[in-house]
Amino acid sequence: MYAPRIKEFRRAYGFEEVAIVPGEVTINPELANTSFSLGKHNFQIPFLASAMDGVVNPEMAIKMHELGGLSVLNLEGVHGRYERPQEALDAIAKASSSEITPLFQKIYSAPISEQIIGQCISNIKNANATCAVSITPQNTKRIAPTAVEAGADILVVQSTVTTARHVSRSYKGLIFSELCKQFTIPVIVGNSVGFNTALELMETGISGLLVGVGPGAACTSREVLGIGVPQITATLECAAARDEYVRRTGRDVAIITDGGLRTGGDICKAFASGADAVMLGTPLSQAKEAPGHGYNWGMASPHPDLPRGTRIKVGTRGSLEEILMGPSSVTDGTMNLVGALRTAMGMCGALTIKDMHRAEMIIAPSIKTEGKIFQIQQGNA
Amino acid sequence: MYAPRIKEFRRAYGFEEVAIVPGEVTINPELANTSFSLGKHNFQIPFLASAMDGVVNPEMAIKMHELGGLSVLNLEGVHGRYERPQEALDAIAKASSSEITPLFQKIYSAPISEQIIGQCISNIKNANATCAVSITPQNTKRIAPTAVEAGADILVVQSTVTTARHVSRSYKGLIFSELCKQFTIPVIVGNSVGFNTALELMETGISGLLVGVGPGAACTSREVLGIGVPQITATLECAAARDEYVRRTGRDVAIITDGGLRTGGDICKAFASGADAVMLGTPLSQAKEAPGHGYNWGMASPHPDLPRGTRIKVGTRGSLEEILMGPSSVTDGTMNLVGALRTAMGMCGALTIKDMHRAEMIIAPSIKTEGKIFQIQQGNA
Amino acid sequence: MYAPRIKEFRRAYGFEEVAIVPGEVTINPELANTSFSLGKHNFQIPFLASAMDGVVNPEMAIKMHELGGLSVLNLEGVHGRYERPQEALDAIAKASSSEITPLFQKIYSAPISEQIIGQCISNIKNANATCAVSITPQNTKRIAPTAVEAGADILVVQSTVTTARHVSRSYKGLIFSELCKQFTIPVIVGNSVGFNTALELMETGISGLLVGVGPGAACTSREVLGIGVPQITATLECAAARDEYVRRTGRDVAIITDGGLRTGGDICKAFASGADAVMLGTPLSQAKEAPGHGYNWGMASPHPDLPRGTRIKVGTRGSLEEILMGPSSVTDGTMNLVGALRTAMGMCGALTIKDMHRAEMIIAPSIKTEGKIFQIQQGNA
Amino acid sequence: MYAPRIKEFRRAYGFEEVAIVPGEVTINPELANTSFSLGKHNFQIPFLASAMDGVVNPEMAIKMHELGGLSVLNLEGVHGRYERPQEALDAIAKASSSEITPLFQKIYSAPISEQIIGQCISNIKNANATCAVSITPQNTKRIAPTAVEAGADILVVQSTVTTARHVSRSYKGLIFSELCKQFTIPVIVGNSVGFNTALELMETGISGLLVGVGPGAACTSREVLGIGVPQITATLECAAARDEYVRRTGRDVAIITDGGLRTGGDICKAFASGADAVMLGTPLSQAKEAPGHGYNWGMASPHPDLPRGTRIKVGTRGSLEEILMGPSSVTDGTMNLVGALRTAMGMCGALTIKDMHRAEMIIAPSIKTEGKIFQIQQGNA
Repeated sequence: MYAPRIKEFRRAYGFEEVAIVPGEVTINPELANTSFSLGKHNFQIPFLASAMDGVVNPEMAIKMHELGGLSVLNLEGVHGRYERPQEALDAIAKASSSEITPLFQKIYSAPISEQIIGQCISNIKNANATCAVSITPQNTKRIAPTAVEAGADILVVQSTVTTARHVSRSYKGLIFSELCKQFTIPVIVGNSVGFNTALELMETGISGLLVGVGPGAACTSREVLGIGVPQITATLECAAARDEYVRRTGRDVAIITDGGLRTGGDICKAFASGADAVMLGTPLSQAKEAPGHGYNWGMASPHPDLPRGTRIKVGTRGSLEEILMGPSSVTDGTMNLVGALRTAMGMCGALTIKDMHRAEMIIAPSIKTEGKIFQIQQGNA
Repeated sequence: MYAPRIKEFRRAYGFEEVAIVPGEVTINPELANTSFSLGKHNFQIPFLASAMDGVVNPEMAIKMHELGGLSVLNLEGVHGRYERPQEALDAIAKASSSEITPLFQKIYSAPISEQIIGQCISNIKNANATCAVSITPQNTKRIAPTAVEAGADILVVQSTVTTARHVSRSYKGLIFSELCKQFTIPVIVGNSVGFNTALELMETGISGLLVGVGPGAACTSREVLGIGVPQITATLECAAARDEYVRRTGRDVAIITDGGLRTGGDICKAFASGADAVMLGTPLSQAKEAPGHGYNWGMASPHPDLPRGTRIKVGTRGSLEEILMGPSSVTDGTMNLVGALRTAMGMCGALTIKDMHRAEMIIAPSIKTEGKIFQIQQGNA
Repeated sequence: MYAPRIKEFRRAYGFEEVAIVPGEVTINPELANTSFSLGKHNFQIPFLASAMDGVVNPEMAIKMHELGGLSVLNLEGVHGRYERPQEALDAIAKASSSEITPLFQKIYSAPISEQIIGQCISNIKNANATCAVSITPQNTKRIAPTAVEAGADILVVQSTVTTARHVSRSYKGLIFSELCKQFTIPVIVGNSVGFNTALELMETGISGLLVGVGPGAACTSREVLGIGVPQITATLECAAARDEYVRRTGRDVAIITDGGLRTGGDICKAFASGADAVMLGTPLSQAKEAPGHGYNWGMASPHPDLPRGTRIKVGTRGSLEEILMGPSSVTDGTMNLVGALRTAMGMCGALTIKDMHRAEMIIAPSIKTEGKIFQIQQGNA
Repeated sequence: MYAPRIKEFRRAYGFEEVAIVPGEVTINPELANTSFSLGKHNFQIPFLASAMDGVVNPEMAIKMHELGGLSVLNLEGVHGRYERPQEALDAIAKASSSEITPLFQKIYSAPISEQIIGQCISNIKNANATCAVSITPQNTKRIAPTAVEAGADILVVQSTVTTARHVSRSYKGLIFSELCKQFTIPVIVGNSVGFNTALELMETGISGLLVGVGPGAACTSREVLGIGVPQITATLECAAARDEYVRRTGRDVAIITDGGLRTGGDICKAFASGADAVMLGTPLSQAKEAPGHGYNWGMASPHPDLPRGTRIKVGTRGSLEEILMGPSSVTDGTMNLVGALRTAMGMCGALTIKDMHRAEMIIAPSIKTEGKIFQIQQGNA
């Protein structure tokens, strides 16, 4: 009979499905240079703290700056809505599981205050820290000028899925090329996962692209909407778009893998897939300094009628410095993330992050230790 | 030595193995049109409630109609056998696990009454609701005329596996082309999973095709018989048959993915695979209004000597309106299913269900959150 | 650099990884003919009870014959070693987990008695039942003549891995072609899994081939030795050898899938892979009449220094007749196995077992019901 | 639009994903010759005990020699740092889970003593046992001469990832070709996983290559660094390099699969992948004679700021002789490892280890016994 033409699908890969192959040359870890730049800003470590209320407040932004990285403050979170955000954060930490989603919906229905936003940014700038802030596309035209005027150094425009071509009836679409011209500071946009979309966004003049739809621990887009692309594939696609864009224009755009990274291993794999930096939520929410009190939750959690994320208990592991720089006394990959990156770069013979992009990877599903034969005493060996 | 010719198998995919890739264009969700039609009947939402006794009674049929969808009443279930079906439903809800299959076998051995059937249909029609009823092929010749005379608007002929060519010794096979000519109302037939079978059934003049063999939560055909096709592949095959049939004849036939859909994510993936509508069992059995009192069971569960399904405890999540239209206060994809569909259509830039058929999908096994590193506080984030 | 030539492996498939696709034609199950023949012996149902001490004793052999199938009595088990085997069986059922392997090693070190063997066979023959007996290759020359003289109808020569070319220093190898000539009764040989080996064994004149290395629930060859081939692939390979052998010689040889079959679904998939019959251990050990008292264990379990299997608690599900013929009151595929086969043949439009060989299969990993959303009340729906 | 060039990955395989196919010829196990040689040293059994403190002390080295194998003593472990290493080993066995990683970091910060090293080697040599010792590349120039002078027969230079081309600022890189010329005893180097790296290392004159990065039960390189290659693929790659090296030079180099082997099945698969010998950690740490008192831990566990492994409770299974030579009274593949290898060689018709390299393998994910239908009474059948 007739042979049908059935849609064929590509296989996509996530962190847990691949591994890095050591290089044919190795270097000592202290030779590895992990620096990363965004516009005129240079960072010793290529890690951004996520624009999540459980991760970043002004104090974390200052601390992260001191350690060589960058934090992004969510201007539409509690720090942009409440003069005393600590009360909201305390209520979130104390709520029971059944209360939490309605509580999110209530807390995040308070209005965003331009005055409070300005104060937050000033606090960060007064400490001489680089200040990056995030806004959703809907609110960018209204809030971005306030933020820039208050001294923001980097503007992040972030929603679940962002394209250069958005059709809307209720508000005039945000045109990224106009935005990039309007402000002289670097603009980071996201999130995105595909080659063509990434290339179109780069052509608007952005300085960085956030990569990731539906991968994070605090995100349930995959269950609620069916939408999501595993991060290795998403990063490979967007990095290929960057390489093509650099080839065409000579201008570099930073690929920033955002979401779903939990361990040093995940981070190293993101760089081997082509990332220039990574944005970390859960790993940094485990710092003593994190505002979430041992909890974390995503931007889509408080959605009034279709929440797509929830509060996750992440616990507290150590100081931000210990999590980033070590020393680690745990063996599950959640501490000394910079040391892990340097060590992996050493094993791959990578002197720079760009060298790390050329590391070989293989498809190798995670090793599951069999509980039957021996019991593990600590961590997830 | 001699190189043997070994049968090669195609890889088939289920909901949990694929994900939708966001589009290169996005639209605002309120621009998404989710409507669906069947013959002269138009529905605002492309959802059918399954012909299961735990899901549909006349009251649910009326409520579903008011919300813009369609319910199918199983004429061979308790509502076609008992004047007071509530007693049987109560007994099912109260039975212990060891009693349940024998109880099913007993309850479903009562005779089907044409008088009771007529009364049920009248109740639905008196409320001005569209009335769809289901019958098995064996009983269609006997019961269908009664149902049509009583006012049924849509006739569903449903069995585990249905083909246009069935060989039987004990009864003269049902010929679908004669059935479609005999009645002027739309006929939906199923279930089917393959391209050729789907095409042959369309050629008999049916208006809709139910897709799915062995995928549902309340179904054990896969364990008992080894027979079953995962729903993404089954929907792709039958949708390809529809496209071919439309190409040849210009007449459209509705592809209705039936069974195995549990979350908004599953529903969105069915549409991305080519479905025009979906038939929902478990998700709607969780409505307060559902007749199953928090339980659900399949059509093959009461089989006298080879039962292939059992009673599943589904619990109660909210009103039918909340499950379909939201607002949701859970984050696991089981509420606000219409909102989820609209949001996903927005992210894929799909203005209509037909646009959604062109969304890209990838093979991406479900993300399993590792319980080791953090504990989830609510839902399945 | 130099591109290495790395060994490439074929992908092999087991029961849980494939599913049968319904046919384009369907038939009523009562039209399905499940018969199977071996030499002059005809069987209504294509099921053999395994030569395991927990499955077959003379009484089970008689009962199985009455129901239309065939049992194989292990002459090297307790029924060939003990006048009162019930005592050994009782001890096995009562032993603790830590005692069981040493107990096996002790019980199976008792000598095999030709007198006891003769008595067992007579008991079966006196009931007019077909009598099949199994021996290992090492003992065949010594025991087979006794068994044939006592009236055995079918001779099964079985070891973990059997080839037509075995090299031994300690005993002169068994030559199957001589064995098949020596006795006029049908000889079944196994186990085997590959095309070439199967073809070579068929050329020695055997009537049936047992297929399966390392797949059974009571077998740990895969863990201990690393050796094993999943049953779908093994059956496909051996069935391809049979088809080639029939093409060359015109003589048919029965392919008997042996081990690893647990449900009606597994059984139907074996036939769709090319099996002419299946040999069942665990499913029949669950019969009230089974000698194992709710336990089962394999032929390699009592090995004196490298045991490769253990005692499995299988429980008791119903009478042998209920397990084979139904009616079933469970929904997990473990009862009414013949009914399941007939129903699946109906859905595939298969009038005979040979028709069933042409059923289409797909690669479709088992559906794992998510415990999160609903709880299953009975069986493994 | 533009079609991107996305990195493609090879699929890599681990022990649990493959199985050995029986041969077309079989031999009796007593005909199998398992011997293995390294320089002038011949070993009856191709097993090396890992250079781990929970596995090898001088007494184990002597016992292993008596049984026909080889032990490697870690000169940088407690036996090279403490006169009374038993105290450190006792402290490790008694520490709680939360104390263990800091305790490791403390214990392994004591200085390495050349005098203690000399004494250990003398103890082994005085018992007429072959003495193999391991050192990391950083310490090789300093410690190796002491070890050789004290009588070491075989030198193992081992780190997580070793290449012939290492770039360092802090110490002049170790040049393996100079090392191999400097000492006349065989040099084993590792660990390595890739074809090119393996070939380059062989060209330096080494006698053996340790294969494995990140696979062991006591190793968390995969979680911490993202780096690791499953052992089947790693062994195939390095064995292909050996075959190529032998083709070019006529000189053989031993491929020694190191890490991740837990059962007889794993061991047999390593040989079928091309290994000449295997290095065993966890299986031998379960011997009564093992110094770890039922615990095991890896070389990277005590790393001062990035520990990559932890203490694993392995328990005690029997004497070293029982684990290697049987008889076994367990059925999970952890005892009588030599018997398992001989039996598998028999089923593959392999008279020598080199023959075993030609055994066929298939991709066949591990059989997961379903707990639902029956319970296993002992071991992991």
